[in-house]
Order: sequence, then C-alpha cells, then structure tokens
Amino acid sequence: MYVVIFRATVRRLDDEYLKVAARMHELALSQFGCIDFHTLSDGVNEISLSYWPDEERIRAWKEHPEHLMAQQYGRERWYESYSVQVAKISRDYQGPGHQGGAV
Amino acid sequence: MYVVIFRATVRRLDDEYLKVAARMHELALSQFGCIDFHTLSDGVNEISLSYWPDEERIRAWKEHPEHLMAQQYGRERWYESYSVQVAKISRDYQGPGHQGGAV
Repeated sequence: MYVVIFRATVRRLDDEYLKVAARMHELALSQFGCIDFHTLSDGVNEISLSYWPDEERIRAWKEHPEHLMAQQYGRERWYESYSVQVAKISRDYQGPGHQGGAV
Repeated sequence: MYVVIFRATVRRLDDEYLKVAARMHELALSQFGCIDFHTLSDGVNEISLSYWPDEERIRAWKEHPEHLMAQQYGRERWYESYSVQVAKISRDYQGPGHQGGAV
C-alpha cells in the first residue's frame, strides 16, 4: 500500500476549485484504482492523502490529461506552494472506534 | 526518510490538548530527531504528519513515557477514533514557491 501526501499553502480557491477537486477524487477512485482519499483544509493550509495499491497506478494517475490540467490550475491559481511525496506504508495501527477505510 | 501519518476524528479538545500537543511537537523535534511536524485540523478531523530519518527514532518516540500518557489522553478524551501509519518516502516533488522543510 502506498500513500501520496499532497501538502499546500493556499493562494485563492475559486468556484472551479471545488468542482475540479470533486472530479479528481471521483476519477482517482473510480478509474485509477485509488483506495481512499482524505482532504483536510483550514483555509490556509491543505493536506490531501490518497492511498494506492502500487506505484504504477499513481504514475498513470499523475499523467492523466484531466489531472495534468488540474495540476496546472493548482500551480497557476490555487496554491502559493505545494509539495508531493510518495511513500510506502510499512506499519498501520488503528485506534478505538476506527472503521477502517484506507487499510 | 520516513513519515508518520496520524489521522483522527475529534471528540472534544480541551485546554490541556493544546499544551500537550505543543509539548509533544517540541519533544519530538528537540529530543527524538524528528525533522518536521505538520498538524492540520478543521475542528472535526485532524491530520498530523511527522518526518523522521529512520524507524528506530519513531519507535523510541512512540515509547517515551510522556508520549504514552498523551496517547492515553488521546484515546480516552480527545479522539473518537484515529489511525497511525508509518511509511517510507520514495519520491518527493516540490511545487513553485515551496521553501523546503521536510525534505
């Protein structure tokens, strides 16, 4: 299991952002084998965690035309700065009440 | 480089939470070799990402008495549920304007 960690500082989120973000989640989950997707924002900072079975699917997702356009919007309009990290999960603990999800 | 991903659903964050959270960040960074620490919350959900050079330091940190007490408070008072994942970073991309930090 792999996780893609997207961390960003927000510049300005317009109406299109919500539409594109929802479409990207739906596309990743329905067509690219993404297992789970969590996005959290406090209005200034954003973290998105997406979970994947292998790196091939992450690469295919990274290069999809609609996703490339979303990445360009992100760089030019929505974010001051961002970083993306790909990591392989080696250990996983669940606290009380956790309903599973990613793993 | 390793990342510890803490995801939680908040039950109730009291005054002690802020003190303990600040102390845990300071302790991890100053005494356990943690490289970087990012916590984000929208009031209902929380994600903390901490970055480490190796798994030994993560284990030592996990078992420190003050941290064990904080984990107990988390289970009993602050969080409805949570999960912790340890992952090894294999790739890292920086977007425009990113000032480094974790890597």
